[in-house]
Amino acid sequence: MKPTGLITLTTDFGMQDGNVGVMKGVIYGLNPQARIVDLSHDIEPQKIAQAAFVLSRHYRYFPAGTIHLVVVDPGVGSERRALIVQTAQAFFVAPDNGVLTYVVHDARRASADLHIIDISNPRFWLQDVSPVFHGRDIFAPVAAHLSLGIPVPAFGKEVNDLVTFPLPQVERGEGKLKGQVAHIDRFGNLLTNIYRRDLLSLREIKVRVRNREIAGLSRTYADGREGEVIAYIDSSEELAVAVVLGSARDLLGAQVGDEVEVVGQ
Amino acid sequence: MKPTGLITLTTDFGMQDGNVGVMKGVIYGLNPQARIVDLSHDIEPQKIAQAAFVLSRHYRYFPAGTIHLVVVDPGVGSERRALIVQTAQAFFVAPDNGVLTYVVHDARRASADLHIIDISNPRFWLQDVSPVFHGRDIFAPVAAHLSLGIPVPAFGKEVNDLVTFPLPQVERGEGKLKGQVAHIDRFGNLLTNIYRRDLLSLREIKVRVRNREIAGLSRTYADGREGEVIAYIDSSEELAVAVVLGSARDLLGAQVGDEVEVVGQ
Amino acid sequence: MKPTGLITLTTDFGMQDGNVGVMKGVIYGLNPQARIVDLSHDIEPQKIAQAAFVLSRHYRYFPAGTIHLVVVDPGVGSERRALIVQTAQAFFVAPDNGVLTYVVHDARRASADLHIIDISNPRFWLQDVSPVFHGRDIFAPVAAHLSLGIPVPAFGKEVNDLVTFPLPQVERGEGKLKGQVAHIDRFGNLLTNIYRRDLLSLREIKVRVRNREIAGLSRTYADGREGEVIAYIDSSEELAVAVVLGSARDLLGAQVGDEVEVVGQ
Repeated sequence: MKPTGLITLTTDFGMQDGNVGVMKGVIYGLNPQARIVDLSHDIEPQKIAQAAFVLSRHYRYFPAGTIHLVVVDPGVGSERRALIVQTAQAFFVAPDNGVLTYVVHDARRASADLHIIDISNPRFWLQDVSPVFHGRDIFAPVAAHLSLGIPVPAFGKEVNDLVTFPLPQVERGEGKLKGQVAHIDRFGNLLTNIYRRDLLSLREIKVRVRNREIAGLSRTYADGREGEVIAYIDSSEELAVAVVLGSARDLLGAQVGDEVEVVGQ
Repeated sequence: MKPTGLITLTTDFGMQDGNVGVMKGVIYGLNPQARIVDLSHDIEPQKIAQAAFVLSRHYRYFPAGTIHLVVVDPGVGSERRALIVQTAQAFFVAPDNGVLTYVVHDARRASADLHIIDISNPRFWLQDVSPVFHGRDIFAPVAAHLSLGIPVPAFGKEVNDLVTFPLPQVERGEGKLKGQVAHIDRFGNLLTNIYRRDLLSLREIKVRVRNREIAGLSRTYADGREGEVIAYIDSSEELAVAVVLGSARDLLGAQVGDEVEVVGQ
Repeated sequence: MKPTGLITLTTDFGMQDGNVGVMKGVIYGLNPQARIVDLSHDIEPQKIAQAAFVLSRHYRYFPAGTIHLVVVDPGVGSERRALIVQTAQAFFVAPDNGVLTYVVHDARRASADLHIIDISNPRFWLQDVSPVFHGRDIFAPVAAHLSLGIPVPAFGKEVNDLVTFPLPQVERGEGKLKGQVAHIDRFGNLLTNIYRRDLLSLREIKVRVRNREIAGLSRTYADGREGEVIAYIDSSEELAVAVVLGSARDLLGAQVGDEVEVVGQ
């Protein structure tokens, strides 16, 4: 697999300070042919798990050879490593802090090839590296060089492992599953860490969250009446809970981490 | 008219969840030469009229052959149709829910050619279509294929009509007009549904909104003193009300839908 | 130096109204090969000094020949001039209201060539110019034409000076510096107008802000404990104050303009 020149950016920088723009300036300075897509810059400050989740929902939809650059990096300038991870499908450039947990978990579940490179060759960094902005001075130029076709081994030594965080587990009982709210989107929809595949063996499903019980799965929002709480399978295969034309977060007072229970037969 | 490879995006997705980014990933995967412009992703959730208005203010300034993709889609996955609308100037790809009301109204007023295609050919969609994310699985790939030069009839059958909402009417009396606040922009300026052309026959204009009366039209903000409430013609020809170096929304407590009255001689 | 086709945008427009998107439509209509980078659109309405500061932190990282378009323009449509400023490194297109203060200050300190052009040739504007949106009708088309290689003198007459605001001064006493909070970023970090070079002669530094005294400079965030207030040199060489995994703005109740004192030996 060769890189395509397509680079996605996921950060907790917001857009007001210009820190995203300057990374793009560095990338275009090295590879004027790059195409750059913003995945999200509104990750909450230092929320590694949120960035990991957002990335995990979307990366499969990008063309093979896309470079995904993730900079949520509270340990910037410390001894934490900087990594390139190459899977069968894509390249990831990120600090070694767990932000690639889902990506690596997916690759390992598929028994796919996985190469992890500890970025150490300063030849592909900016000349002066600020200890508080590796996004601009290390990650962006590494991604740009990668997009130019510099082979992965040139950036540093291959290593065997990386930091991952324990994925929130789904507890499985007899006719029962217990998971969590993993993400709440802009619409106030609650995305859970329970997937369609987890539900295959259950019939006459009931979903419980925040003292509310929802009977059955809707196909889509328009299957419910305005204001109704529905459960459904979201676009990345997660079990989700929404309020039709409203916000489940607001109506149910839900938060990331809230328990979600599924019972069935 | 041929598509130019330029695609604009207008959604209510916000930027935090990556749902805009993934649509771009799908587009670039199909057409690496596409250029993509974000028009707005901060449309309030499910506010079709707001998206329609924002689009209507800007589409004329894009080069002929631009593809405007609009995904504000509370009826996603239901029986609502998905459309391509081709005017003399541009292509629009959107759910059939009224979001193209102004565009179609403009084209009909100009007696211009208008082709409406009911998107039905799954050949140009992603293989798996989530019932809750047609933006990614239908609209984005249709726009991308369109940008590659696939002829419009290939996407589905031409139909005669589409859903539009009734445009808020301007009431006309003797020396008098009554309209509404149609949009409030980031500066707190109130844009109305009364246009320059509506005012041509009136002299010594007074504009009334929220119990405030403004005598005469200013040319630009700098014609008023700081804090002064002014009326003026905004950049898309609408009558508008602003507070110089301040916010008319905040000072007047104004909202979309508020009545605006113009009297003159 | 020739323009590269790379254009950055810095505005106070926000993203919700489509005013940024329409400027891109105008640019791509004139130069389909342009590449456009958003630096920031979340400058607070009419805050010229904030836009000037954000631009000043980042422009050096863009390739030579980049065109930086800045539209924070409370005087739009008045007699204020529109300028192209060419430095040894880049082109700037902006209203003549002080938004290029730092850029010009940098160029003059480096005794570098500086050309200031009063944009007056309407040939490179849109045909109809709204008195309230020069971003779309003058600045965007001028930047686009510039990116196509139209020589700078074609846009208007060279002039000798431009509007700048007095930079907030750093007071220097014996073993003492007094400056200000110049910008607060998304993380709540306080960036000051005191630079690394100002600190070279001081040892055993103490930084005081909002009745808090911080002894010594940290290299990076991870050098402190969670919740600790640290002082450090930020990525554009400014002295800065942060709370590790928290917000200095919130913890200290800090605001732009707050006094910052450095004492040392």
